[in-house]
Amino acid sequence: DKYFKIAVLPGDGIGPEIINESIKILDVIAEAFEYKFQFDYGLIGAEAIFKTGDPLPEETLKICRESDAVLFGAIGDPSFDNNPEAKVRPEQGLLKLRKELGLFANLRPLKTYSSLIEKSPLKREIIEGADIQIFRELVSGIYFGEKFTDPDGGYAYDVCKYSREDIIPIAHMAFQEAQKRNKKLTLIDKANVLDTSRLWRKTCQEIAQDYPDVQLDYMFVDNAAMQLILNPKQFDVILTENMFGDIISDEASVIGGSIGLLPSASVGDKNALFEPIHGSYPQAKGKGIANPIASILSVAMMLDHLNLKPAADKLRQSVEHAIENKYVTIDLNTKQYYSTSEVGSFIADHI
Amino acid sequence: DKYFKIAVLPGDGIGPEIINESIKILDVIAEAFEYKFQFDYGLIGAEAIFKTGDPLPEETLKICRESDAVLFGAIGDPSFDNNPEAKVRPEQGLLKLRKELGLFANLRPLKTYSSLIEKSPLKREIIEGADIQIFRELVSGIYFGEKFTDPDGGYAYDVCKYSREDIIPIAHMAFQEAQKRNKKLTLIDKANVLDTSRLWRKTCQEIAQDYPDVQLDYMFVDNAAMQLILNPKQFDVILTENMFGDIISDEASVIGGSIGLLPSASVGDKNALFEPIHGSYPQAKGKGIANPIASILSVAMMLDHLNLKPAADKLRQSVEHAIENKYVTIDLNTKQYYSTSEVGSFIADHI
Ligand SMILES: CC(C)[C@H](C(=O)O)[C@@H](O)C(=O)O
Ligand SMILES: CC(C)[C@H](C(=O)O)[C@@H](O)C(=O)O
Repeated sequence: DKYFKIAVLPGDGIGPEIINESIKILDVIAEAFEYKFQFDYGLIGAEAIFKTGDPLPEETLKICRESDAVLFGAIGDPSFDNNPEAKVRPEQGLLKLRKELGLFANLRPLKTYSSLIEKSPLKREIIEGADIQIFRELVSGIYFGEKFTDPDGGYAYDVCKYSREDIIPIAHMAFQEAQKRNKKLTLIDKANVLDTSRLWRKTCQEIAQDYPDVQLDYMFVDNAAMQLILNPKQFDVILTENMFGDIISDEASVIGGSIGLLPSASVGDKNALFEPIHGSYPQAKGKGIANPIASILSVAMMLDHLNLKPAADKLRQSVEHAIENKYVTIDLNTKQYYSTSEVGSFIADHI
Repeated sequence: DKYFKIAVLPGDGIGPEIINESIKILDVIAEAFEYKFQFDYGLIGAEAIFKTGDPLPEETLKICRESDAVLFGAIGDPSFDNNPEAKVRPEQGLLKLRKELGLFANLRPLKTYSSLIEKSPLKREIIEGADIQIFRELVSGIYFGEKFTDPDGGYAYDVCKYSREDIIPIAHMAFQEAQKRNKKLTLIDKANVLDTSRLWRKTCQEIAQDYPDVQLDYMFVDNAAMQLILNPKQFDVILTENMFGDIISDEASVIGGSIGLLPSASVGDKNALFEPIHGSYPQAKGKGIANPIASILSVAMMLDHLNLKPAADKLRQSVEHAIENKYVTIDLNTKQYYSTSEVGSFIADHI
């Protein structure tokens, strides 16, 4: 029997609903493939603040450290967003978790589903066949640099800092992924303005020597924001720093037709976390309308990570089967749609 | 006779070619409306580095300070981009000029031309009728904060700093513009992570009291990058900081169908500069294929700024006439197209 400890952090908004479906899937997979999953639940985000005052309680961190993988729902609550004075914020929980677990690389695969291409705001000929893998650095840069607000509120600053050591591991990962794919790596930066971007360029130029079969290109982030929409098919693997990656990867999510489909993995040397790229979508909370597929596909990435490739493949097939048979939530088909849990069960039944 | 001193900075790449057409237009306008324009040329960017070693020679700055308006071409040269070690860069010229002249607000109006809607990668129903005015803060933030690279190349940092004084003037401009339009202002930031963003939110919340008729919304930059493509019509006036504005406004340029059409104005208390939003496009240099319309529409913004409204309106009509009659460069019509100077002359003749 293969035995795995999964830390489960449902979080805020629609997080708990979509995580329920992922657990449903994992239960079925455990049975079908004779694996064993132990689920250890932890509090995080606004939920954790309301219950403990801390967006990442020590207990949650402990569960995650001891896990083989972390399954994460979503984070964020509007009551904090519109209050610039709030000292404790849900997002701090996720950011601290990433940092503490050393999850330095956020991977976001982007694909188009032919049956959903019409849902995209982009024209079919622009996106059909686009297939991009984004590597976003996740534990440095302006997210984690020194921050300061003058007590009088007169000024504030945020420091974006990078060292070569922050860049090297994720750069190697991205080059290696490019080798397995179409051998093209695009570094997105703002090297005409930022010192940190020039450090990224220099470091990647050096690492490129180890990967002579990969073509390394550079693109300024402003141009990249345009090119992703004008011609997404020009990209294969994208590598970028934390803040640019946040913007670019959310932007790129429009290519596939729905952010409700997009999974992500955040990996480090010891731990790994799997989450949908969409947020907590508080307006939809408790309505049973949230699309569980992004979370379910994050489970597939998790199964890959745990070396349970047959299960991962089977799960992806089942998701495609659901999409092709239009067994989807309202965001993908406003005419005929199913609830969060109906879609989860449909996929589970197919496994 | 109305007399104006115009500083003309053609810059790099296709800059000189498109500026030629703008001067052609201004000559015709001078005659038709009985204005007088004195053109004082200055070096900037890579051109200036090659000739003087300085991306913004003192003489150029002087010409600009004494001008009623600055007409700017483009900046940037690939020989610098791929060299992380270069100490002097073309872009420093433009950044220093913005700072020295105190051009704190970059305005980018975005419209769709019905005859060009098919050129956009976005579907017609998504973009038709979109009309957005972007205000990007231009002389602070991470562009102008302290920068440092460790001499051993081990690490680097860039500081993003904002004070209330940096935010207040442009916020008032944006609120006032919203009052004249659809009374909706969206502040784009990353207030769930950055102290500077929270300062922006707080400051704008306060200023909002003076504009009770304007609805102020907040949007995280990652979500905004998505929403701009999913549903651009939800935006009226956008306000944002320097780096986010760089990314968001280039991204938004895809809405109109061509970056070759988009003008911008950078204004301060004493001076103002007008430039296309596209770059120096070095691959096209000297080929006579560059689209002069973005520069020509920047001239229209300049005429507005100089209170020459009748001339500005006439010029905009002439540009629309050229676009409707498909008298355009190759980027807008690959089947039947005209050269940079033919398009410029066609528009000039119509005035
Ligand atoms: C919730 C927020 C702090 C987070 C980020 O900006 O990293 C989110 O947008 C993401 O991309 O995972
Ligand atoms: C050339 C570059 C420094 C500049 C910027 O980033 O501001 C350009 O992209 C722009 O938007 O005007």
